[in-house]
Amino acid sequence: MSARHPLDAAIALKPHAEGAWHGRTSAAYANMIGPYGGITAAQCLQSVLHHPERLGDPIAFTVNFAAAIAEGEFLLRPRAVRTNRSTQHWIIEMLQGDHLVATATAVTATPRETWSGHEARMPDVPRPADTPRTLRRGVEWLNRYEMRFLEGAIPAAWDGETRDESLSRLWVRDDPPRPLDFASLTAIADVFFPRVWLRRAKPTPVGTVSMTVYYHADAAQLAATGPGHLLLQAQGQGFGGGFFDHGGQLWNEAGELLATTHQVVYFKE
Amino acid sequence: MSARHPLDAAIALKPHAEGAWHGRTSAAYANMIGPYGGITAAQCLQSVLHHPERLGDPIAFTVNFAAAIAEGEFLLRPRAVRTNRSTQHWIIEMLQGDHLVATATAVTATPRETWSGHEARMPDVPRPADTPRTLRRGVEWLNRYEMRFLEGAIPAAWDGETRDESLSRLWVRDDPPRPLDFASLTAIADVFFPRVWLRRAKPTPVGTVSMTVYYHADAAQLAATGPGHLLLQAQGQGFGGGFFDHGGQLWNEAGELLATTHQVVYFKE
Repeated sequence: MSARHPLDAAIALKPHAEGAWHGRTSAAYANMIGPYGGITAAQCLQSVLHHPERLGDPIAFTVNFAAAIAEGEFLLRPRAVRTNRSTQHWIIEMLQGDHLVATATAVTATPRETWSGHEARMPDVPRPADTPRTLRRGVEWLNRYEMRFLEGAIPAAWDGETRDESLSRLWVRDDPPRPLDFASLTAIADVFFPRVWLRRAKPTPVGTVSMTVYYHADAAQLAATGPGHLLLQAQGQGFGGGFFDHGGQLWNEAGELLATTHQVVYFKE
Repeated sequence: MSARHPLDAAIALKPHAEGAWHGRTSAAYANMIGPYGGITAAQCLQSVLHHPERLGDPIAFTVNFAAAIAEGEFLLRPRAVRTNRSTQHWIIEMLQGDHLVATATAVTATPRETWSGHEARMPDVPRPADTPRTLRRGVEWLNRYEMRFLEGAIPAAWDGETRDESLSRLWVRDDPPRPLDFASLTAIADVFFPRVWLRRAKPTPVGTVSMTVYYHADAAQLAATGPGHLLLQAQGQGFGGGFFDHGGQLWNEAGELLATTHQVVYFKE
């Protein structure tokens, strides 16, 4: 009998009264302080995916990290605030005790066939098998992802030498490999290390404030991607006043754009 | 006595019980069906900016357009769901009668001085005075903006000829000119015509589903920008299954990055 995948264990939710869910932080995805943000995002989205009223697949998802999440239980309160013929709008609140620790919004929609023509094309890069694995140690969640950096790896030396650009490209998949779905794709979208570290080669404390994911694949495409590697790319945009943002893209090995993502991140100094 | 600027009239809110606000749709910003999305976004943000509990300036703002907004009154319910030492998290609901028509989340923060180095640099383009005004007619809100397209204007002929790329660059300011603030910057962030029209030269029906703005300027920088032109840039990413997304940037004439923005848009076919 095979054990449950750590991601499935981390996003497991138990029903609570009135359409709310109980969940628990996962030691397997622990970050420096509190959990890896991607797993919090996946838990928030999962509360919608699991919901009996849910209509269609996710199109847009935004999570706001409001406070440090303590080890232990949390409550997720997803509300379908508007249901249209083919789209649905959700507000999600994550609480610990009486304290709100994260908010999220999601838009879901029933899949439709239309004209298609992705403009964000996968760059021409070596295949995962030809790219050595990048070992990253320090916090537990790093062990849950297999990363193969092609460009823009974490600085080898924290020498304070600034760079003009913060483009990173890497192959990523769950470790152990796991068939892709909306929850794991959302978790993976937060895998980028902070762009400000790359620009400055200085390990200033950071924390994601808000992350958005736009989904360009439906459930069938994600299932067809299976446990394969994803190519991730991100680049910073604005840096100053204690915050920076980046924009990113996620493709599967076949070069299909699965999602785009953006986030804004607090940095201390 | 000078008349109130149409933007100020459009975002004017009257106090309602329990921290909620009354507002009214503005004929000056009417779109094909319902209001221009940028004005709805600005109204949602304004309900936070006006709130007596508000801490600091906006950092991140996401608005989800849940339903067509009818001409007339609406209610805005902003809630400060988490207030930290220097950041604050908001959930905003916009209602007409008992129906939710938009949701939004906002993160605000007290301004801090840190390392700064914007990576998204303004492209080298002709100045506004050297760029002829682009006349766009059809819906009322277009008359509220002075636009000067440099690249990627709306197709001159709807001949169905597809293009691989949808990059647009244009100078934009309020018409009549108005000193920049967070509300007008947020409204301007939605000014891009749909990227799918540029890709396909086919006027398929569209509607923004979700828009995010990350602010890279504080109130003082916006005030210093005054009523000057902003350079806006946007490019599409994924197109298919009835939705596309774009990413964009907004700079002032001095080349300072003021905001980045993303949105996902429904298209019919």
